[in-house]
Amino acid sequence: MAETMAPRPLPGHTWYGEGQGAFSGAALALMRRLDGLFLELAAACGAEEHVFPPFLPAGALNRIDYFGSFPHLATFPVNLERDEANLAKFSCAAVDDSERVRLTAIEAPAHVLTPSACYHFYRLFEGRRFDQPVYVTTNAQCFRREDHYAPLERQWAFAMREIVCIGLAEEVEAFLAAYRVRVDALIEKIGLPARWERATDPFFNPGSNSKYVMQQLLPVKHELVYDGRLAIGSVNFHHDHFGRAFDMQRAGVPLHSGCVAFGVERWASCIVQQFGADPARWP
Amino acid sequence: MAETMAPRPLPGHTWYGEGQGAFSGAALALMRRLDGLFLELAAACGAEEHVFPPFLPAGALNRIDYFGSFPHLATFPVNLERDEANLAKFSCAAVDDSERVRLTAIEAPAHVLTPSACYHFYRLFEGRRFDQPVYVTTNAQCFRREDHYAPLERQWAFAMREIVCIGLAEEVEAFLAAYRVRVDALIEKIGLPARWERATDPFFNPGSNSKYVMQQLLPVKHELVYDGRLAIGSVNFHHDHFGRAFDMQRAGVPLHSGCVAFGVERWASCIVQQFGADPARWP
Repeated sequence: MAETMAPRPLPGHTWYGEGQGAFSGAALALMRRLDGLFLELAAACGAEEHVFPPFLPAGALNRIDYFGSFPHLATFPVNLERDEANLAKFSCAAVDDSERVRLTAIEAPAHVLTPSACYHFYRLFEGRRFDQPVYVTTNAQCFRREDHYAPLERQWAFAMREIVCIGLAEEVEAFLAAYRVRVDALIEKIGLPARWERATDPFFNPGSNSKYVMQQLLPVKHELVYDGRLAIGSVNFHHDHFGRAFDMQRAGVPLHSGCVAFGVERWASCIVQQFGADPARWP
Repeated sequence: MAETMAPRPLPGHTWYGEGQGAFSGAALALMRRLDGLFLELAAACGAEEHVFPPFLPAGALNRIDYFGSFPHLATFPVNLERDEANLAKFSCAAVDDSERVRLTAIEAPAHVLTPSACYHFYRLFEGRRFDQPVYVTTNAQCFRREDHYAPLERQWAFAMREIVCIGLAEEVEAFLAAYRVRVDALIEKIGLPARWERATDPFFNPGSNSKYVMQQLLPVKHELVYDGRLAIGSVNFHHDHFGRAFDMQRAGVPLHSGCVAFGVERWASCIVQQFGADPARWP
């Protein structure tokens, strides 16, 4: 359906046709207003706000088998080897006729561009001992390489707001249940036709991935789907997957975690598809 | 001096020792307060705010000889070739013992991670005809590979707020002169010991670069230097360099441009070096 209908453009949004776009005017105001609503939701559990840098260490993601599960989505920040001969060779003919970079010798990258906002928290809290549940939130630029891109709805780079709980299993489950109710109230207030559906992550070779099999068996991921076609948010229960991988404990027990995630550009797209391109008619 | 003195840490700032860090609490509030001050300065010329994506096309930067001037600073976003055999090979042994990525076949990149905020405006306004000066502002995550990094002061990824004027030569010169006065008033209000110095950009092989020679002959770049050691801002006059390269004109004449730039993390570092780590003592 996304392929067959021409989406309404968002005033103030410039789409570059390469998986990313720019915002000003009404589009920028809408993105900020939406994130303000998500921050109000985050305040309901007292989540502390964090702002993270764009790269995550490849070693941290390797520990949770990110590259086995999502090698097709990853983008790596790559630098040239810094010896003068290599840089001089590169600088003489850096870009080819099709405007692609002619890399000369490169350093093996040690990082990945953030694929999901909440990974930053597990890295930040690695090795920590907690005596109560932790509630945190961040809005991170996330990066996912895709086969094709569409303005606001499928981007190489996009904004993801997450609210995360790290605690005992029953604390995380209560957190996720409370946020489903809060998100339901938000979409009712806005007037967006969206509903929850069970979902799986977009694994590489899903049939041979035990995590995909687990997601099929257990209700660990639910997506909020707009108009039957576009996931604009999700709630995710990670069990103690990150608690074990990043050694986060309470009283000697690996902690559970869960997150509520909002794709900010996708919400902006819903607003303009649902209410039109005139900002005066937005809720 | 930066190497010999241990800098005071900023409460709420986590330094990852890889050219980037995370913010929460007092550090995050300080970063936002500083950017709010820069936005107030931007409002003085009525600059419209824009938010840009993280990548710039390599072709656009190649047109202004970025790769001839700064090949050592560039970071490229790189993806694996997407055929299943290549992804499967990668996913089996993605990271080596030193936590570096073992890339298999990669696509030639077509982009660069933003090296300076204002480049986005020339790309956005490419081919435009204007009938009056344009004033715009953005805060962009910028990326510069360096030999070494230091918390808040020399980062691989950092926030740069810029205010840009695109117009006739005399309009751009008046804009830059007015902003030197406004920035002087700001540092006096805050109480930061900083002063303007003529400067050049960090060119690769400067002696053989005609733009470096021009920067030495003409006063096109001035940096605001804190404590005799740290550039926390700059004003830059580009003549019609970008107007010609990106075909921006008024009445048939290529436009001039200039920008005022603030390194937000460096301002945060100055505040804590100057006034101490207790937020109650910050101005």
